[in-house]
Amino acid sequence: MGSFDDATTVRRVSDGRYSAELDGAYAFEQALNGGYLMAVLARAALDAAGRPHPISTAASFLRVGRPGPAEVHVESRKSGRTADVARVTLVQDDMAVVEAIITTGTLDGDAEPVFSASADRLPPLEECVLFGNEPEPESGFAARVEMRYDAATMGWLDGQPSGLPEMRSHFRLREDREPDGVVLALAVDSLPPVVLNTGAYGWSPTVELTWHMRAVPAPGWLALHGRGRLVSDGWFDEDVEVWDSRGRLVAQSRQIARAGRNRP
Amino acid sequence: MGSFDDATTVRRVSDGRYSAELDGAYAFEQALNGGYLMAVLARAALDAAGRPHPISTAASFLRVGRPGPAEVHVESRKSGRTADVARVTLVQDDMAVVEAIITTGTLDGDAEPVFSASADRLPPLEECVLFGNEPEPESGFAARVEMRYDAATMGWLDGQPSGLPEMRSHFRLREDREPDGVVLALAVDSLPPVVLNTGAYGWSPTVELTWHMRAVPAPGWLALHGRGRLVSDGWFDEDVEVWDSRGRLVAQSRQIARAGRNRP
Repeated sequence: MGSFDDATTVRRVSDGRYSAELDGAYAFEQALNGGYLMAVLARAALDAAGRPHPISTAASFLRVGRPGPAEVHVESRKSGRTADVARVTLVQDDMAVVEAIITTGTLDGDAEPVFSASADRLPPLEECVLFGNEPEPESGFAARVEMRYDAATMGWLDGQPSGLPEMRSHFRLREDREPDGVVLALAVDSLPPVVLNTGAYGWSPTVELTWHMRAVPAPGWLALHGRGRLVSDGWFDEDVEVWDSRGRLVAQSRQIARAGRNRP
Repeated sequence: MGSFDDATTVRRVSDGRYSAELDGAYAFEQALNGGYLMAVLARAALDAAGRPHPISTAASFLRVGRPGPAEVHVESRKSGRTADVARVTLVQDDMAVVEAIITTGTLDGDAEPVFSASADRLPPLEECVLFGNEPEPESGFAARVEMRYDAATMGWLDGQPSGLPEMRSHFRLREDREPDGVVLALAVDSLPPVVLNTGAYGWSPTVELTWHMRAVPAPGWLALHGRGRLVSDGWFDEDVEVWDSRGRLVAQSRQIARAGRNRP
């Protein structure tokens, strides 16, 4: 089983062109996770700009990403003092799969916040629950990513959705690899859709997801806090905040997605 | 004085090319408001797709937009059943000023939410305060847009910032024109920066702003609720929710921006 870094490797083919081999381990029924795709895009954008941190990523998901070969096209739109901005496109079979704008730059790992909100409560690891029954799955997304959920947000598994579009979990890679900006790209799209708690079932395709890296994460577990504000007209929003093991807000995302309409 | 619709008019030059004349009334010291620029982009994207609503807009602000002629380039990236997605670029002097990805579609004006959060409190109009002294300014942004602020978020005007990155206001155009998706683009970037309440002063340039239209707004005043979660390392986030006169959430935005560093 390859590492997360192997699975997100991009190889520079020419100026602004990268090749990648997308890893089916990050797929659900052959549809690759959007966070995994954003991690691949981030690696190409960071390499092209020569910057360490994906400060801001706005990604529109046009088609389902499939395991196998892909290209990443990076087109610089601004190279500034503080940040670089590029159009970044994931291409498979000559079609755009993800269309993104990525701002890269350098965050100060020692910055002290002028103001920070505080995280909502997430029960400690030992009080949280697994999604499936296996503590150490052998294949698929759950074999790469370890998550421990707040039971209050997992009633939908037993047909008892809370009615609140919320989902909370601890998160880490199942390998000796500490979080950084590329792992944060994966983390912001790792929770099950919050609408599972408002009665939606089935596939909830992300239409657009924007996320910002806000600080350099400390080693250890991350805490994911997901919630939505409105489920209406077949659309829902999902905000995810990522907090590191030192209790600092390290990433923020919002996605707009189509609510699953299949009933169980 | 021209109307908002005049100021945001785009003229189709050829497939995917539009011309516009940007109106200095929406500028602060010759820098055009980002929401105004997004309104112009929205009109071009809606025209090109033949869709009524700007469902999702992710905009990166590369350079300051100036009053005068501009072009809008629209490049379709997907034309789907539910939505269209296009790259949309505002160009002045042959340079990209705003680089955006816009998803357009059709919202159901009669949709009943499956779930909706509720708005924080905003005092009624008659208890709110003006920014300046003039109830009816004769020029500039304040002559186009009428805003009445929650006094609890305006202490920074008197050198008494609250310490909380929050800003709240009622909003409407100063003309006989009810809100729609294009007005919402303006509304989400109309509040003074929330960091004025955490001691930042001066120009706070937006780097990236993503906003989603969530419902068709009812006629009347809009309520803007802005707040930030983290001010750190020279960066801050600002979320703005827009609620309509019927108390429905009609738009959500988040921007990431550089905190002003000038001291008074």
